[in-house]
Amino acid sequence: MLSGIPHDCLIILVSNSARQPVDRYEIEVQTLEQFCRLADRPAVAVHQRDPGLASAVKAAGLPELIDDEGLVRTGKGEAMLIGMAMAALTGRKYVGYVDADNYVPGAVNEYCKAYAAGLHLAESPYSMVRISWHSKPKLRDGRLFFSRRGRSSEITNMFLNRLVAEHSGFGTEVIATGNAGEHALSLDLGLRMRLAGGFAVEPFEYVELFEQFGGLLPEAAALPDDVKAVPVLQIETRNPHFHDNKGEDHVKGMRMQALNVVYHSPVSLPAVREAILELMVAEGALAPGQEPPRERIYPPVGSMSFDTFLDTLNAESTGFHQIECSLGVSTVT
Amino acid sequence: MLSGIPHDCLIILVSNSARQPVDRYEIEVQTLEQFCRLADRPAVAVHQRDPGLASAVKAAGLPELIDDEGLVRTGKGEAMLIGMAMAALTGRKYVGYVDADNYVPGAVNEYCKAYAAGLHLAESPYSMVRISWHSKPKLRDGRLFFSRRGRSSEITNMFLNRLVAEHSGFGTEVIATGNAGEHALSLDLGLRMRLAGGFAVEPFEYVELFEQFGGLLPEAAALPDDVKAVPVLQIETRNPHFHDNKGEDHVKGMRMQALNVVYHSPVSLPAVREAILELMVAEGALAPGQEPPRERIYPPVGSMSFDTFLDTLNAESTGFHQIECSLGVSTVT
Repeated sequence: MLSGIPHDCLIILVSNSARQPVDRYEIEVQTLEQFCRLADRPAVAVHQRDPGLASAVKAAGLPELIDDEGLVRTGKGEAMLIGMAMAALTGRKYVGYVDADNYVPGAVNEYCKAYAAGLHLAESPYSMVRISWHSKPKLRDGRLFFSRRGRSSEITNMFLNRLVAEHSGFGTEVIATGNAGEHALSLDLGLRMRLAGGFAVEPFEYVELFEQFGGLLPEAAALPDDVKAVPVLQIETRNPHFHDNKGEDHVKGMRMQALNVVYHSPVSLPAVREAILELMVAEGALAPGQEPPRERIYPPVGSMSFDTFLDTLNAESTGFHQIECSLGVSTVT
Repeated sequence: MLSGIPHDCLIILVSNSARQPVDRYEIEVQTLEQFCRLADRPAVAVHQRDPGLASAVKAAGLPELIDDEGLVRTGKGEAMLIGMAMAALTGRKYVGYVDADNYVPGAVNEYCKAYAAGLHLAESPYSMVRISWHSKPKLRDGRLFFSRRGRSSEITNMFLNRLVAEHSGFGTEVIATGNAGEHALSLDLGLRMRLAGGFAVEPFEYVELFEQFGGLLPEAAALPDDVKAVPVLQIETRNPHFHDNKGEDHVKGMRMQALNVVYHSPVSLPAVREAILELMVAEGALAPGQEPPRERIYPPVGSMSFDTFLDTLNAESTGFHQIECSLGVSTVT
């Protein structure tokens, strides 16, 4: 996986692996260190549940991220938020996400190239690239079947497209990447976006873009003068997306979290809300008459004080690792 | 698959797909043409059993390649020989092989990069790069198991290493790529090597290098003065090797063809021959007292007359396609 990330990109590993009974995170960091020594490149690693990280997040002004145990909440969106903070901390202009369960380094490499190409083509300081993978191989009858659709994406995309269609009056299939785990964005954009927790994070990015940059809500913050719109490039890659199969419950959870954020958005429309309720009741995820739960929505990462964040991290964290390369380029300054 | 081949490489497709009841080769050529139009790049395609190709091969001075039906023999080695002739015809310096049953374009891309890196590092006009893939995923108990070893490679490598060990007096595991379908070589080297037919082609390359360039046989042709040795770089890639599973018979056939060429080589030694016989009898591939069959060994591609080859191909072949790109660069001159 690591070897697929182009050499000039900084590797940021945010892990929530178990530390008991065996410290899997420690093994990951050792593997990362070995890889970086051989490849002569830097990396940053942090454990999502490290107490020092929680202190730093709190001190930097994002207490919403902390749970009752005093640690950063578990969840994919939360990990991505930490990753974005790390990217900002190290002075990066862009951040690109890659799920760590990918089996094929060549696919990771292609994702990163698509990120770079798309962010370049976007020609805007506020831009996002989302990967639509070519196919997802599944084991079926003892052989590989290359499915073009994901089990969760289909539903998420349908409702996001329905939302766009209700506003425009034209049916559309324009959104193909509602659940795209693989996506990249400029930090200029990322730092001003609110992120959702858990698996709501990716579909909420669309909702947030509609709310903040869609011109639908009068109270939305004005864009800087030089930016007229936020280009979102959806790029279909050539590699099949081979990854760990997490089972049906995982998929159902993802699907519902995506629909929760679409339902509760102020840009949502009654027809969309009703369709979501119908599906949820039909799937047994909601009792008739109930409202879908709200997902956690965090303030923008840009609201954090990065100086305080880094100081506290260096002072208190034991689960934060900076790996420097032999050229002596420090990754965190 | 095609999209994994770097843009500046000429694509050469040698196909032996069925042309009846549906002309699959025609479909392949159409796909290739469409890809090349979109990617704006050239390609050459030829069908192994095209009568015009057979006439051209015969006229160019390689009648050994023709079977009783008057067509180029079926077999992997034979296809690779045609591919090398095409590469020579189009004025290439190197040829790199990629099996067409690969599922992951990113892996193909990595193979080509390893070829380029290896041939560059070899710093010799006579050089070869052979890929040792990282792992081969297999379906086992409903999940993917990433095996480090191939079913056929293990045996082939064992006997090639045994051969080296018997000559040197030191046990070794130096050869890890006896059956490497993915390999590349300079045409300076390739055009003077004999190639074996069928699945014997890859292991025979080692045998041929030992015979011609190993200094073991007094009658071997002398190397040009500026060349002291032929570097063979074995490179392990990072991508798993996902490809079509051709079943147990295919693997057994490959294994036996590899051992046949090791057995019959003049550089083989009695201890190696005996061990091969023992294994073949134990596997039921040979009756006790029998000799292993000989594989077909073809004269070097460099012995062909390429002018005659091209003239006849252009005049008589219907299964030969040149796809030019919009820049008007003709690939075959």
